[in-house]
Amino acid sequence: MSLKERDKKHLWHPLKQHHTHPDSLAIVKAHGCTLVDEDGNAYIDAIASWYTSMFGHCNDYITSRVSYQMQQLDQIMFSDFTHEPAVKLSEELIKILPQGQNRIFFNDNGSTAVEGAIKMALQYYFNKSEKRSTFIAFEDGFHGDTFGAMSVSGLSIYNGPFEDFLMDIKRIPVPDGTNTEEILTTLKTIISSEAIAGFVYEPLVQGAAGMKTHDAVGLNALLKFFKSNDILTIADEVMTGFGKTGKSFASDYIETKPDIICLSKALTAGLVPMAITSCTEDIYKAFLGNTIAKGFMHCHTYSANPIACTASLASIELLQTEDIQNSIKRISASHKAFEKKIENHPSVKTTRSIGVILAIDLNTTANRYGDLRDKLLSHFMKNGVFLRPLGNTIYIQPPYVITEEELQKVYSTIKSSLEIV
Amino acid sequence: MSLKERDKKHLWHPLKQHHTHPDSLAIVKAHGCTLVDEDGNAYIDAIASWYTSMFGHCNDYITSRVSYQMQQLDQIMFSDFTHEPAVKLSEELIKILPQGQNRIFFNDNGSTAVEGAIKMALQYYFNKSEKRSTFIAFEDGFHGDTFGAMSVSGLSIYNGPFEDFLMDIKRIPVPDGTNTEEILTTLKTIISSEAIAGFVYEPLVQGAAGMKTHDAVGLNALLKFFKSNDILTIADEVMTGFGKTGKSFASDYIETKPDIICLSKALTAGLVPMAITSCTEDIYKAFLGNTIAKGFMHCHTYSANPIACTASLASIELLQTEDIQNSIKRISASHKAFEKKIENHPSVKTTRSIGVILAIDLNTTANRYGDLRDKLLSHFMKNGVFLRPLGNTIYIQPPYVITEEELQKVYSTIKSSLEIV
Repeated sequence: MSLKERDKKHLWHPLKQHHTHPDSLAIVKAHGCTLVDEDGNAYIDAIASWYTSMFGHCNDYITSRVSYQMQQLDQIMFSDFTHEPAVKLSEELIKILPQGQNRIFFNDNGSTAVEGAIKMALQYYFNKSEKRSTFIAFEDGFHGDTFGAMSVSGLSIYNGPFEDFLMDIKRIPVPDGTNTEEILTTLKTIISSEAIAGFVYEPLVQGAAGMKTHDAVGLNALLKFFKSNDILTIADEVMTGFGKTGKSFASDYIETKPDIICLSKALTAGLVPMAITSCTEDIYKAFLGNTIAKGFMHCHTYSANPIACTASLASIELLQTEDIQNSIKRISASHKAFEKKIENHPSVKTTRSIGVILAIDLNTTANRYGDLRDKLLSHFMKNGVFLRPLGNTIYIQPPYVITEEELQKVYSTIKSSLEIV
Repeated sequence: MSLKERDKKHLWHPLKQHHTHPDSLAIVKAHGCTLVDEDGNAYIDAIASWYTSMFGHCNDYITSRVSYQMQQLDQIMFSDFTHEPAVKLSEELIKILPQGQNRIFFNDNGSTAVEGAIKMALQYYFNKSEKRSTFIAFEDGFHGDTFGAMSVSGLSIYNGPFEDFLMDIKRIPVPDGTNTEEILTTLKTIISSEAIAGFVYEPLVQGAAGMKTHDAVGLNALLKFFKSNDILTIADEVMTGFGKTGKSFASDYIETKPDIICLSKALTAGLVPMAITSCTEDIYKAFLGNTIAKGFMHCHTYSANPIACTASLASIELLQTEDIQNSIKRISASHKAFEKKIENHPSVKTTRSIGVILAIDLNTTANRYGDLRDKLLSHFMKNGVFLRPLGNTIYIQPPYVITEEELQKVYSTIKSSLEIV
């Protein structure tokens, strides 16, 4: 029996309506930018498996390091012990993280990195005998699927069954270059009546919203406002982190740096799950004292898993090579050239790109998971390209190791799809 | 500089008060049941690194399978695709999971497995146009550190800063063999005034509470009550799963089977993070329909990570070998013999064991993370045994591959510790 058929007996896939979409394509091999299905068809992974496999699938440099680590130390409780991969990773991360970050706290995925950040902010004030319990977040932000992370997500289109259990969040629009003063006025009203613990935001690019970008100058003004009002700022760089925007982190484009940063996805380069909530020394110090209760009592069993830390260390090394940095520049320049080519196409409403991220909004309205999405997805797959449109947005976020030839194939497939919109 | 010193610069450990406990012991190697620190000292890992490394650290059978998988397919989006390790794992799990379980939904850790279960239960009724929003849970249960999981945890001793954001949960005591009728009376009162979505419980053994055991007959009566009142039952087998209690799952001791089961920890045998929320076909079917919104829109990026699935498959094979099953019986019998030896010691209040889990309550009151805990921990480590006492409870949960000689060393170290209580 094929994998596709066996799949249906016992598996339940996420973000999928099995009734209308019963089939899942079975992938048997992945190497570099290529995915191969059980019938031998090949596809270019043009979104790097949800922005994780940035150095290509089954990258030898990373997997050989991980294989060695698996012979030395696979897992150890990070509550009681430490180990070289975690120590070294903390040292390497602090070198490249935005200024001010000095402490690394481990989690397992983006959602729990955000849960960790929310709890850190609440307890930071609690430990200073201040009660603050409201967060501010952007309207279309997405931060994960656990209850805390769902709460701060504005993009909660499918949260109907869970609404009663979500925290009360104050939402503001993203700065678009014209509305900064207006947002600041709204913020002044909000902070005059509520004790705000933190501001949670995806810096510059809102991933799940369809790679929507916003104004860096405006965002900087908002961050300055929060800083001057002693409100913690929490940058969710789960999607944007590790070179995607052309700089190591999206926060590198903005003068005012966050207090807390959430990292995951490309952190382990598509090997295994891991996440980090990093923060300033000031936050860490607020948890020091003579009682255990003042400490941060948040823990997952596999926190700082040595295998995941090793994958992360190898990928941070790769990220800093001239080769990869040149690739990022090359992809970014190719994106700009492709935008020029299609910007006047009647099916194209608008395009935008930053670093290796390129998004195209189509001249149509479409449901996030509607018929157009299915039609486009099918067109892309038939042409050997895996892209995952969201509503009327097509976006690319290829592995840094994508060749120019592969990239041109992705572009030409997108270009041909514009004719069927 | 030593790892211990480098650790202090940038790392923030979970469940740790860095002010009073600044040092973390650095482990450089782990093999079988042995951990080796950076000074060359060896320790027996008598709790299998939080109940994960049940087949020993860096187990060749598991790591060689994982190394091969890393060359084939490291990561792929489970929202859109499927793959052999996930399909095969679902088939193997359904064979050994308690009767009625038929669907496998993936998560990354115990907390998110519980978040998944809570969301599944809420949406199960929501999809049937029923609003139910209260859960019932045991008083000393522990289910994780994200907001949903914290809510159902009764053992929320350090949740002060987060209390305002936790769901309203009705708590009941565990059945102790004498109070079943009383609990049932309480339950009748609760369900007469509240719409209950589910009952969340650690079957038979409450891990974080200090390996507290309860009455299987009483638990069965409670589960029967919930079933007959159409309330979903959610077994958290994150700690108890995969042979710890002497059977594959603790639920195997109880006639009435759960609707949903949460799995993690030993699921991947201490290699990398992964978790599963499994459920009945009835629950899965309630999410089928013509709209995407009726589906389960909960997802983590690395869901069903092929590397983690492979580690899990290899460990399920090992669990079913005669060798490992005999080891579990041997350890269980040794525990019983050791209990006999110490039960009358003046420092011992009570002992209990089930499968490879042994717990000893000391004749003293002690804080969960207080001075006695530190004194015992230090005694154990000096004697080359890693045990992690909780308050006045010392417990063992050794890897199945522990030799009789190693086990006797653990016992004698515990015995000598009774003199310093």
